[in-house]
Amino acid sequence: MAEQIPPSAILLISCPDKTGIIAAVTEFLFRHRGNILYLDQHVDHEENMFFMRVEWDITHFALSRQQIEPEFQLVAQRFDMRYELHFSDKKERMAVFVSKQGHCLYDILARWQSGEWRVDIPIIISNHEDMASVAAQFGVEFRHFPVNKDNKREMEEKQLALLQLVQPDFIVLARYMQILSGEFISHFPNRIINIHHSFLPAFIGAKPYHAAYNRGVKIVGATSHYVTAELDAGPILEQDVLRVNHRDSVDELVRKGRDVEKLVLSRAVLSHLRKEVLVYNNKTFIFS
Amino acid sequence: MAEQIPPSAILLISCPDKTGIIAAVTEFLFRHRGNILYLDQHVDHEENMFFMRVEWDITHFALSRQQIEPEFQLVAQRFDMRYELHFSDKKERMAVFVSKQGHCLYDILARWQSGEWRVDIPIIISNHEDMASVAAQFGVEFRHFPVNKDNKREMEEKQLALLQLVQPDFIVLARYMQILSGEFISHFPNRIINIHHSFLPAFIGAKPYHAAYNRGVKIVGATSHYVTAELDAGPILEQDVLRVNHRDSVDELVRKGRDVEKLVLSRAVLSHLRKEVLVYNNKTFIFS
Amino acid sequence: MAEQIPPSAILLISCPDKTGIIAAVTEFLFRHRGNILYLDQHVDHEENMFFMRVEWDITHFALSRQQIEPEFQLVAQRFDMRYELHFSDKKERMAVFVSKQGHCLYDILARWQSGEWRVDIPIIISNHEDMASVAAQFGVEFRHFPVNKDNKREMEEKQLALLQLVQPDFIVLARYMQILSGEFISHFPNRIINIHHSFLPAFIGAKPYHAAYNRGVKIVGATSHYVTAELDAGPILEQDVLRVNHRDSVDELVRKGRDVEKLVLSRAVLSHLRKEVLVYNNKTFIFS
Amino acid sequence: MAEQIPPSAILLISCPDKTGIIAAVTEFLFRHRGNILYLDQHVDHEENMFFMRVEWDITHFALSRQQIEPEFQLVAQRFDMRYELHFSDKKERMAVFVSKQGHCLYDILARWQSGEWRVDIPIIISNHEDMASVAAQFGVEFRHFPVNKDNKREMEEKQLALLQLVQPDFIVLARYMQILSGEFISHFPNRIINIHHSFLPAFIGAKPYHAAYNRGVKIVGATSHYVTAELDAGPILEQDVLRVNHRDSVDELVRKGRDVEKLVLSRAVLSHLRKEVLVYNNKTFIFS
Repeated sequence: MAEQIPPSAILLISCPDKTGIIAAVTEFLFRHRGNILYLDQHVDHEENMFFMRVEWDITHFALSRQQIEPEFQLVAQRFDMRYELHFSDKKERMAVFVSKQGHCLYDILARWQSGEWRVDIPIIISNHEDMASVAAQFGVEFRHFPVNKDNKREMEEKQLALLQLVQPDFIVLARYMQILSGEFISHFPNRIINIHHSFLPAFIGAKPYHAAYNRGVKIVGATSHYVTAELDAGPILEQDVLRVNHRDSVDELVRKGRDVEKLVLSRAVLSHLRKEVLVYNNKTFIFS
Repeated sequence: MAEQIPPSAILLISCPDKTGIIAAVTEFLFRHRGNILYLDQHVDHEENMFFMRVEWDITHFALSRQQIEPEFQLVAQRFDMRYELHFSDKKERMAVFVSKQGHCLYDILARWQSGEWRVDIPIIISNHEDMASVAAQFGVEFRHFPVNKDNKREMEEKQLALLQLVQPDFIVLARYMQILSGEFISHFPNRIINIHHSFLPAFIGAKPYHAAYNRGVKIVGATSHYVTAELDAGPILEQDVLRVNHRDSVDELVRKGRDVEKLVLSRAVLSHLRKEVLVYNNKTFIFS
Repeated sequence: MAEQIPPSAILLISCPDKTGIIAAVTEFLFRHRGNILYLDQHVDHEENMFFMRVEWDITHFALSRQQIEPEFQLVAQRFDMRYELHFSDKKERMAVFVSKQGHCLYDILARWQSGEWRVDIPIIISNHEDMASVAAQFGVEFRHFPVNKDNKREMEEKQLALLQLVQPDFIVLARYMQILSGEFISHFPNRIINIHHSFLPAFIGAKPYHAAYNRGVKIVGATSHYVTAELDAGPILEQDVLRVNHRDSVDELVRKGRDVEKLVLSRAVLSHLRKEVLVYNNKTFIFS
Repeated sequence: MAEQIPPSAILLISCPDKTGIIAAVTEFLFRHRGNILYLDQHVDHEENMFFMRVEWDITHFALSRQQIEPEFQLVAQRFDMRYELHFSDKKERMAVFVSKQGHCLYDILARWQSGEWRVDIPIIISNHEDMASVAAQFGVEFRHFPVNKDNKREMEEKQLALLQLVQPDFIVLARYMQILSGEFISHFPNRIINIHHSFLPAFIGAKPYHAAYNRGVKIVGATSHYVTAELDAGPILEQDVLRVNHRDSVDELVRKGRDVEKLVLSRAVLSHLRKEVLVYNNKTFIFS
């Protein structure tokens, strides 16, 4: 995995489309002896916007990590770019929120513990105590915030205070069955990843498997998205589906759905970790 | 195909659940020397309802086709059954409605012409003339009804008059871009099959690919359902999906979607033709 | 899950096809007040064989568990049946074999610990020590057998001796990278479940992802099957696939493949646990 | 479709990997005012090879179509490139070979007639007369070559003579059940597209559905590939699969498989038409 590969730098770029952008960026990299490992771009012709992800080996790059941004400024300004610069060997810090159901949490912890993901998990936060023992078993700190209707604001403030200490790079809602306030979300723009147990935009909100059962659909799904203030309406990171039939009771849909949920969430987290995701106009471009 | 197989009879049964139903039905068939080819059943425990499809070889069956219903009455009454009796060698008559897009129509006509489906297509009806030449090419009668907002009721009456003559067993809307009135639909309960170009209940109504594009979904789909008075809300017969990504423009979604649409519709038509479908509470049970 | 459902009995039946089998079995159940929860059957017309799975609620069944087999003998003999009788509330014992890779093991242990599966895991056996800590973390006994070419027979004898004590109902090879001898396998006919990391019969044997990469396939897969003396040739329980493309290196195929492997294996184990599987002529019928 | 889009030029490039390739190519395009519509590249680190597809709008390009190659020579020589230059508005000529089964042929003809594909179909060639009427119905010339074991060489010579006149750009084997000789194939390197009715490399050769049935697989598939001298071993263009179960007889597998075959073949043809395909080491890179 990542361990065996030399460190690379990643630029995620968006700007108004015009000719010469790729030439300018690749000339910049070539001039400083950057070996391009990956380059992908997309033009949104309706919006006249250009998007690009480029990753290059920095082993023999002529610029130090600190020099890259200052030197890249000229290119960025010429094309009015918004950009992010990342390094592949940075280990991000991921906070996990969970409620009572553990299937996504187990899947995340197994990937983390086995070294499949380059990530630290400094904290697991829950509105219930059910998952405390699972956290303990994997040696991750667990904090319980008994959120209810009346104390929600207070609890969120305490969670924010804790997160202020923990300093996570992003948050994963691994079946966290509480709706976060707009205030809370505003602290982590495009940095909270949720898994919703339906094929959005079908069955927004609570009890999607019941709704799917009642509608008699032949396929159910799961959707991972960045959390925004509007419920289940943030930029979609990943979706997948599962064929079902009339034999499947609601309980059976719930059971089968868990497998799709955990895979969809884990694929979304990996895309986020690999810095493959660009968000524009409430949509994602996944360069993978 | 069906041609090579000896004729069979099919019973589709629904009734309140109680013990002894399968024993009674299978004893009835055994007593008259019916060799069961297929038997499947389902119990809806919430509704306490029992559903069954049983198909048997009638080559050596002791009862003639005409005698089956009268003799089966005793069993049916004992369990308060609703049932349908079909014969596999009956060739049904299918009327096809189409607008300007031909992909579903071509697929249907190819299956019909090549003998894949045991069906007759006595008529193709359209609100446009575009598909007249395709109908001619396959030797099927084509009738043009230039429906618009003002003449819709009149046109539907003319269509119904024509269908009264043609006597189709069921109707397939092969991308027919007109909403049928409740009055029209009431003549063909669970006998009008539509294809909707989205994964229902997501993106009900017009322009679902545009809506899917704007929402940034990672998967699009198609849904075939029986038409009811409520738009895109009838019992779902079949659904399938297709992975897409940010590169796919609306035009590209439309192009890719056509392949899913035509397969989903054709699978739904085949289930209907094979008498695999039971409808209860606006949901289908597909015994296949 | 199973906990909430009243206990049921399951009959898996195979016999030469003739008329009256379903009638006889269902009449037997009806006579003793068995409420059928599920009945599915299949006729193999080439082999002239009949297969059936029937499950019934035994809460009010007139026969005790011990009486069922003696009473059923008459029916079984009349139709020359082979059959198995199971009870849904029996908790089976599952031994797990693993080598160095933990993804299937984690998935199995999570399902077991969270109560998703009604099963006991008395032992984890490995030819390496890597997974000892994972076993400890989940509180399952771990035994290390350092198998190599020279001591394979001796090691298998020791494993058999241990299994003789543990008395598992079946064995799961959760990415166990040793080929079991025919002698070992003969102790557990259709009771050893393996996961092979390819879409069998493509890429039998070692390093299937390398072979898939070299062939340039667009889809890779995984296959779970009962182990027989012939390598990767036993009855297939479950398969699934994953779309890949030219960007995917062998390492990436291995990474993506793990998710398919663990799901395919877990679905196979669940079918086995639920007694949905009938084996005939090296093929499975999965009644689900 | 293509009609609405301004003409573009496409370069497919392969060369030994080194830094500066993308910079050089994009600088070349920028210098001549080429607006890049699409650029994708791939590095095979094992082979140290670089592959790229770049497409640009030529409406305002400073070089005429004839000037592009001469001007691009400098770049190509510098990096030791093999390349192909295509123009999106060129209408290619596609010869279709078919035997008795029409499902792929119908699908191809419908896409062609409805204008979904920018292609001409000057000829349909068959070893049987069954599809003559379908060809006539779509107004395409049909030629019958009654190939058998004894006259195969002679028939191929006659086919080649005809193709010499017709001058197709490529050939599609739409379920053509004859093995072409290496001599025949050598005239159309990477320009003969076949559909094989299995998930290659499983079930190479004749009767793959029978083989799949006998093996008891849970998924069947289809594979489209360029034809090479070795049977069913050419570079794979596209694959897809279909879930099946023990109920599916061989006839049912054949029936269901047809739908996968026709879609897989049509997707492969479209990739070929759009010049998305690069072949290297008997593998394809599909830039889409």
